[in-house]
Amino acid sequence: MSATPSEPATEEVTACLIVIGNEILSGRTRDANLSYLAKGLNDVGVQLREARVIPDIEKVIVHTVNECRAAFDYVFTTGGIGPTHDDITSASIAKAFGVALRRDPGVVAAFERYYAGERGIELNAARLRMADFPEGAEILNNAITIAPGYRMENVFVFAGVPKIMQAMFDEVKHGLVGGKVILSRTVTGHLSEGAIAADLDRLQALYPDIDIGSYPFFGKGKFGTSIVMRGADATRLEAAAQDVRALMRDQGVAPIDGEPE
Amino acid sequence: MSATPSEPATEEVTACLIVIGNEILSGRTRDANLSYLAKGLNDVGVQLREARVIPDIEKVIVHTVNECRAAFDYVFTTGGIGPTHDDITSASIAKAFGVALRRDPGVVAAFERYYAGERGIELNAARLRMADFPEGAEILNNAITIAPGYRMENVFVFAGVPKIMQAMFDEVKHGLVGGKVILSRTVTGHLSEGAIAADLDRLQALYPDIDIGSYPFFGKGKFGTSIVMRGADATRLEAAAQDVRALMRDQGVAPIDGEPE
Repeated sequence: MSATPSEPATEEVTACLIVIGNEILSGRTRDANLSYLAKGLNDVGVQLREARVIPDIEKVIVHTVNECRAAFDYVFTTGGIGPTHDDITSASIAKAFGVALRRDPGVVAAFERYYAGERGIELNAARLRMADFPEGAEILNNAITIAPGYRMENVFVFAGVPKIMQAMFDEVKHGLVGGKVILSRTVTGHLSEGAIAADLDRLQALYPDIDIGSYPFFGKGKFGTSIVMRGADATRLEAAAQDVRALMRDQGVAPIDGEPE
Repeated sequence: MSATPSEPATEEVTACLIVIGNEILSGRTRDANLSYLAKGLNDVGVQLREARVIPDIEKVIVHTVNECRAAFDYVFTTGGIGPTHDDITSASIAKAFGVALRRDPGVVAAFERYYAGERGIELNAARLRMADFPEGAEILNNAITIAPGYRMENVFVFAGVPKIMQAMFDEVKHGLVGGKVILSRTVTGHLSEGAIAADLDRLQALYPDIDIGSYPFFGKGKFGTSIVMRGADATRLEAAAQDVRALMRDQGVAPIDGEPE
């Protein structure tokens, strides 16, 4: 469970996302990073196994980061690395690792060129806070902002703004050491899940290597159920999908490949 | 921290949301319940302090529920109470509380009327699973579905489908024992947060009773920063908002009340 990224790929490589921000917990802002991260991680064989949304409170961040970095192969944090007083992620990460915050001269030089040079904006004390990193951090530049994210061992520290978070993740994604890539197949039918539940239960027993999920939907006068099959073996996945299509037809319902429209 | 709902209101009443579902962690489905719950809880003086997204794995559900119900005044779970094999929330909740699952005769009778009676649908074994509750559960009916949610001590167990989850929450919301209601005020300006970070830091020190958050935004050719102030005292909140407007004007920027358009 606690493989570091430099170790060889195992069958199952796990990740946890820690969303840091009062604005998510107050309901002001809806997180948009989880699904992007989940899909991107799966592309490289890493399974997002848990996500936590926590407030901008140092002791909570320290505790959560330490718990999660011990329990998962990779941890990603989003939020709290900007220039303002409520951006306390880096100080908290430093505390979690028991190291000091250190100002990085290379990042300061880049800020000087960017702010004072190109833009004629004051490189003030607040902006310089974004050049402070926990001792030992690997600095990760990105295509969108001058302020970098970074990595401490198996913990990646990213911005919360989705465009920036995504740019930061895209930079590191292909450097992650993954395991099996999980493939997914969806079959949808306009029937209630209760009608096929017993059949699905039998199917799940026949396909222990495939995770079969049943997701009902409602709305716009339509209802139905999507059956999502996830597994590493494309042949087995197609066999399971065939069986799901058949059990829908047994109910007099035409199966549709994919999600509902 | 571990007040039960029947105890008198304290100053701060906390809650945790546990989102149960592989479909969220795979990125297939975006959670839509957190923000609804956060806002609804705040209406009645309960603060959402953490959220966790976990997979449909019994031992993870048991561990997470037990950890969170000890740490927060209220816990809400969403997902996994339907009729299919992957709906394992109720069995897991029973295990977390060390009790058995018990079929409720009143719910069975309601199912018999609804399925077999009104709709002429078979009340099969799968649908009957939705009449199984952990021993001691208080059954919570709702306006949308015949299948109820329930409450075990300080843990509320709801469906994952947003419309159903919201209906279930609306039924219990005004029965929650809350503390202070947190008010919110937002001032937005078309400036970078780095320009006002030092001023905001000073302001936060002047208003320790107000949580001041700074949230930059980008997009559609516009950029700027929203300052969100949260606190229980409307007068203090307005004073802080006045100060934020003033510091934006000092930067030559017209403050806008509310979120960016």
